[in-house]
Amino acid sequence: MGKHLLVAHGGGPTAVINGSLQGVVESARSAGFDGKIYAARFGAEGILAGDLIDLTGVPAATISRLGHTPASAIGSCRRKLTDADYPTVMETLKKFDIGYFFYNGGNDSMDTCNKVNELAKTEQLDVRVIGIPKTMDNDLDLTDHCPGFGSAARYAALSAAELALDASGLPIHVVVLELMGRNAGWVTAASAMAARLTDCQVLTYLPEVPVDEDRMLADIERAYAKGKGLLVTVSEGICGLDGKPLADTGIVDGFGHTVPGGTAQHITDQIIQKLGLKSRAEKPGLLGRASIPYQSSVDREEAYAVGKYAVEAALKGESGFMVAIDAVRQPAYSSSLSLVPLAKVANVEKKFPLEWIVDGNQISDAFFDYALPLMGDEFPEYALLRG
Amino acid sequence: MGKHLLVAHGGGPTAVINGSLQGVVESARSAGFDGKIYAARFGAEGILAGDLIDLTGVPAATISRLGHTPASAIGSCRRKLTDADYPTVMETLKKFDIGYFFYNGGNDSMDTCNKVNELAKTEQLDVRVIGIPKTMDNDLDLTDHCPGFGSAARYAALSAAELALDASGLPIHVVVLELMGRNAGWVTAASAMAARLTDCQVLTYLPEVPVDEDRMLADIERAYAKGKGLLVTVSEGICGLDGKPLADTGIVDGFGHTVPGGTAQHITDQIIQKLGLKSRAEKPGLLGRASIPYQSSVDREEAYAVGKYAVEAALKGESGFMVAIDAVRQPAYSSSLSLVPLAKVANVEKKFPLEWIVDGNQISDAFFDYALPLMGDEFPEYALLRG
Repeated sequence: MGKHLLVAHGGGPTAVINGSLQGVVESARSAGFDGKIYAARFGAEGILAGDLIDLTGVPAATISRLGHTPASAIGSCRRKLTDADYPTVMETLKKFDIGYFFYNGGNDSMDTCNKVNELAKTEQLDVRVIGIPKTMDNDLDLTDHCPGFGSAARYAALSAAELALDASGLPIHVVVLELMGRNAGWVTAASAMAARLTDCQVLTYLPEVPVDEDRMLADIERAYAKGKGLLVTVSEGICGLDGKPLADTGIVDGFGHTVPGGTAQHITDQIIQKLGLKSRAEKPGLLGRASIPYQSSVDREEAYAVGKYAVEAALKGESGFMVAIDAVRQPAYSSSLSLVPLAKVANVEKKFPLEWIVDGNQISDAFFDYALPLMGDEFPEYALLRG
Repeated sequence: MGKHLLVAHGGGPTAVINGSLQGVVESARSAGFDGKIYAARFGAEGILAGDLIDLTGVPAATISRLGHTPASAIGSCRRKLTDADYPTVMETLKKFDIGYFFYNGGNDSMDTCNKVNELAKTEQLDVRVIGIPKTMDNDLDLTDHCPGFGSAARYAALSAAELALDASGLPIHVVVLELMGRNAGWVTAASAMAARLTDCQVLTYLPEVPVDEDRMLADIERAYAKGKGLLVTVSEGICGLDGKPLADTGIVDGFGHTVPGGTAQHITDQIIQKLGLKSRAEKPGLLGRASIPYQSSVDREEAYAVGKYAVEAALKGESGFMVAIDAVRQPAYSSSLSLVPLAKVANVEKKFPLEWIVDGNQISDAFFDYALPLMGDEFPEYALLRG
């Protein structure tokens, strides 16, 4: 028996992170990998504690359900490894005789991968390290997009469309929808799909553009007056002209961070108080990254593929890379995979193009040319009869 | 050509209210009904204004999409008709030569139906009136359950399960989920399904039982300490021991009503401040009645069937009834339809059985024996590997 394989999750889960895990396990098995297949229990915490789950004997039928299992099936954590932690990480790799290490995460995780790869080289340890990309925020560089984004975008687009129809079919209030995204508007931008799928007015605000609250309220009043219902969609992290978030919970958590949230409720309060309109705020929050019924089939398949590709690359001897997705959109969408150096991708954030935001609250077709193919199966055509 | 048909929606939509509309239109067509098929634009508002949509020529392909179209495809409103309104209602029925009137709604709508039926008799007007039940709240009497409930329950159950897995897979905070239900806990009770589908601790609070906040916080602290993550699910309308809602937005709307909402955020604030735990609140709100991907197939089929049954009954000469669903659950679920007098069902509220609430925050198997068959296709079996 050769060396063993370790896979770990880092940071917040996506709707398809377990799909990548399925890709790792199934491709190792089908390649005839004869070592043990370990997963870190709760990510970095499990690696530091030497607390690994042995997946080697888990039935194929269970593994096959991973693509439709929300959150992290092996557990994740938010712990960012510090320099003081790395000796312990290396100890665990040695103790369990790990020869293949896969870390499935975002920027921080790619930084971890890179450091483990460098340390392995320094210590002349035979460990091949491959990063598997994952983030609903879509902010990893050097990849066309990140697994997890397509599903979060589909959730935002379809949920916004459904809310928009509720708002226009019973037009008694302005509905405000808050979506995840503290610094990046990728997911919230997808909610502008509601304007394309329904008859409702839709205004969309992303964190990339500071919001003039007076102008926002004037825009809301004008749009609502058109009488076909109004949906306002906002990223949780949108800021005012002073650069501060429009809302937080006013509470400081145990880590000294102000707890975010309540942006939609804040706007709703303003609409009621200053415009005298009825309004209500909705905040599905974590549901936007956990929902399986809104999962994008394209996203799930690509998440599987990057996990599989990572294993195949490591078995061929590659190390120090992240799997990247390259995409072609014309004449039809297709994607292929490649390896990019971890050192280049770690800690670089991909920004939402400002030119895709029109008049401060509309999203351009260029965004949908980019994002629609990632959102999976075709969107429904609704039967709207009220004219 | 005989008389014409009018269908209207009343109150908040459900995920399947358009399914009943599809049942009405398709069954009238297949019965060879030769009058016009009208829908009131925005419910009672359209009836009062004589603003009807002529659906007679709408293509069958469009009608066939209604079952998968969220909210009200013809528009609804929250206007409760007063005695002063009824002469105008009768004028519209006469003006458009309506012989068949179908009102699709909850308690208020059944009251409206009943009054229209009585007035038609008094005025010797040849109008047959049938009520089509609809309410996600499931609070209509004399029917086993209401179309709309099964889908809202499925949304609550699956969303709660997905959130629970997020909470137990990345156990950094207590997640609080707020669900619709100001007075009745039917929908929120379904969220307790999360405890049956996942490894997460789940506490569920319904409006039927006043909440002792100190005890709730103690229960939360104890459950969270078990270390497998914690999801708390609450109805928006839960009250404290003083009988007042735990939270409202502190805002009085244009109608003089305090605007509800923020119950989950209030509990989250308490958890952070008094227990020193991280916590976050999620509130999908109207998404719980608008989501098509979480729609229950059984609910959609029954919604269609009650619309169809209403038309068939009216064409046979029946009037003054609501369509009721009768259900058998053993050895397998099946349902059949019958007519109950409108006078008996109007303004009677079906209560959630208090004996189905255990220890104030658990839901008994008896509820799931009742509700699971209504929630449609089987629930997923998740792959949980973290042990």
